[in-house]
Amino acid sequence: MARLAGVSRATVSYVLNNTSAVRISEPTRRRVREAAKELGYVPHAAARSLRAGHSRMVLMPAPDFPVGPLYSRFLDELQWALGRLDYTVVQYGAVGVRGDEAARAWAELRPVAVLVPGSDLGTKGVTVLKRSGARAVVTLASESVEGAHALLLDHEAVGHCAGAHLYARGRRRIGVVVPEESGLESFSAPRLAGVRRALRGTDATVVELPLAYEESAAARLAARWRELGLDAVFAYNDEYAMLLMRALQDEDIDIPGHTAVIGADDLMLGRLLRPRLSTVHVELPSGRDLAELVDRAVRNPGAATETHTVLGASMVHRESS
Amino acid sequence: MARLAGVSRATVSYVLNNTSAVRISEPTRRRVREAAKELGYVPHAAARSLRAGHSRMVLMPAPDFPVGPLYSRFLDELQWALGRLDYTVVQYGAVGVRGDEAARAWAELRPVAVLVPGSDLGTKGVTVLKRSGARAVVTLASESVEGAHALLLDHEAVGHCAGAHLYARGRRRIGVVVPEESGLESFSAPRLAGVRRALRGTDATVVELPLAYEESAAARLAARWRELGLDAVFAYNDEYAMLLMRALQDEDIDIPGHTAVIGADDLMLGRLLRPRLSTVHVELPSGRDLAELVDRAVRNPGAATETHTVLGASMVHRESS
Repeated sequence: MARLAGVSRATVSYVLNNTSAVRISEPTRRRVREAAKELGYVPHAAARSLRAGHSRMVLMPAPDFPVGPLYSRFLDELQWALGRLDYTVVQYGAVGVRGDEAARAWAELRPVAVLVPGSDLGTKGVTVLKRSGARAVVTLASESVEGAHALLLDHEAVGHCAGAHLYARGRRRIGVVVPEESGLESFSAPRLAGVRRALRGTDATVVELPLAYEESAAARLAARWRELGLDAVFAYNDEYAMLLMRALQDEDIDIPGHTAVIGADDLMLGRLLRPRLSTVHVELPSGRDLAELVDRAVRNPGAATETHTVLGASMVHRESS
Repeated sequence: MARLAGVSRATVSYVLNNTSAVRISEPTRRRVREAAKELGYVPHAAARSLRAGHSRMVLMPAPDFPVGPLYSRFLDELQWALGRLDYTVVQYGAVGVRGDEAARAWAELRPVAVLVPGSDLGTKGVTVLKRSGARAVVTLASESVEGAHALLLDHEAVGHCAGAHLYARGRRRIGVVVPEESGLESFSAPRLAGVRRALRGTDATVVELPLAYEESAAARLAARWRELGLDAVFAYNDEYAMLLMRALQDEDIDIPGHTAVIGADDLMLGRLLRPRLSTVHVELPSGRDLAELVDRAVRNPGAATETHTVLGASMVHRESS
């Protein structure tokens, strides 16, 4: 490239690295840039971040649970909002690596910020990330971690909303679906706890219903529905609710006459069912607010960590409850 | 770290970089490694890849279309299969950057391989990636790109399968839903072309039906259904089929008596509808086969590029057609 531009190799390096310590004339700079373009030169992000001490990379571990439409939309908005602030989101898909061990793998990429949804990251992991140059670590989970900013996802509130609604509709024997698919415990456990809290001290009882996302599993549960003596079910989310409601209808169980069924997430499909599905509308954190939190933290890494409780829950009452 | 281990800084560097050119005793190596561990040292992937000339990073652009359950499952399997071969999948979420310009951004991370689903990557982009050290570029699209391995996704076959089925069921006025959401054209256009091809030279006609994924849009389409005079519709996929089928049922249009409705993807939800939804079962490329193709290409970057046609399409006939 130096030959093509007719300058020294040092000059090429100065120009492409945007070194301001050395004075180089504008025509020379232009010549080097044109030569670089002609040769298809691409700067090395690694080398650049080694020099600058940090990157514009915001790392997120790829989720290890089945991603629903709600999370997809949140991620889209977040990528867009961080993109506008000149960050690039990178989803890191290491398999079978968890917690602080995962943090070491992420740290190798030297991200400027790390967003950890539903994680088991500990204080040690946060320290590893910060030592490696991450200026901000933000967790999205039920509990905060020392040293990290926290968006506290209040899944308990989702369950509480469901439990309170069913009680108010006169239901007293309330089933709560707990998915058997792995990776969903961190959502399902607080939802169940929320239902229990809503019904504590009342005459209502709660029955835990493990369920795999399969037609045959739903059919087996529906077959023993009358024995269970339930008059309502909070089915974890709209997709499980659709599955279970179909199985109950196939057993000629009237909904909501015999059993009220409610989901969560407020997906389109709930409105397409008959009876129309009642659901807990879940408001995920805004991608834009989260992007701004990241940017604030990157600019001022020494500031105190922020904690925000997010995940609004509100009941959407339709026909199934 | 050198102080803690009681060795020179050069020795620390040799040990941590696994330099074999310099002889260092095992006890010294152990002392350095223990000091590194105590200090929470994390190697810099960037620096490592600068030294080694390549990384173990397989880069995929994050999809810019709404991701369905089928793609999620494919991605999970791919991450798992590449993980077993000691690669890490990184999904790169740049917003609004496309084609060869995107290739330059990806190249900055110096991935050892790049997988590009549904892309508009050109020959120039492939060259940029290879010059920057990518040993394998694999596209997953309808057409191949010079210099890149290609998994040809035959979406045309999906449409052909749908068209042939509806014709065989005696349908002659066949609507084809084309989603209005952006990012889906590269799937919907070949599906429509496939239906047309299946019906070419017959007495059947094809009517294109643009549709947004919204209840109100489906209701508007259903309201003018009788004017359209269609006796069948291929609804792009199962989710659009569910939306449109509900709107048609709300207009008292008998399915399949008056209009046959079929989807694609063979999702669980189609089996839960009444009538049960007929659908084109789509077989995505196996994550394991793709991981092996990547590994083969990385090991032997000089070999001829491979082209495989994937995406099996087969009809699942249920009650709606």
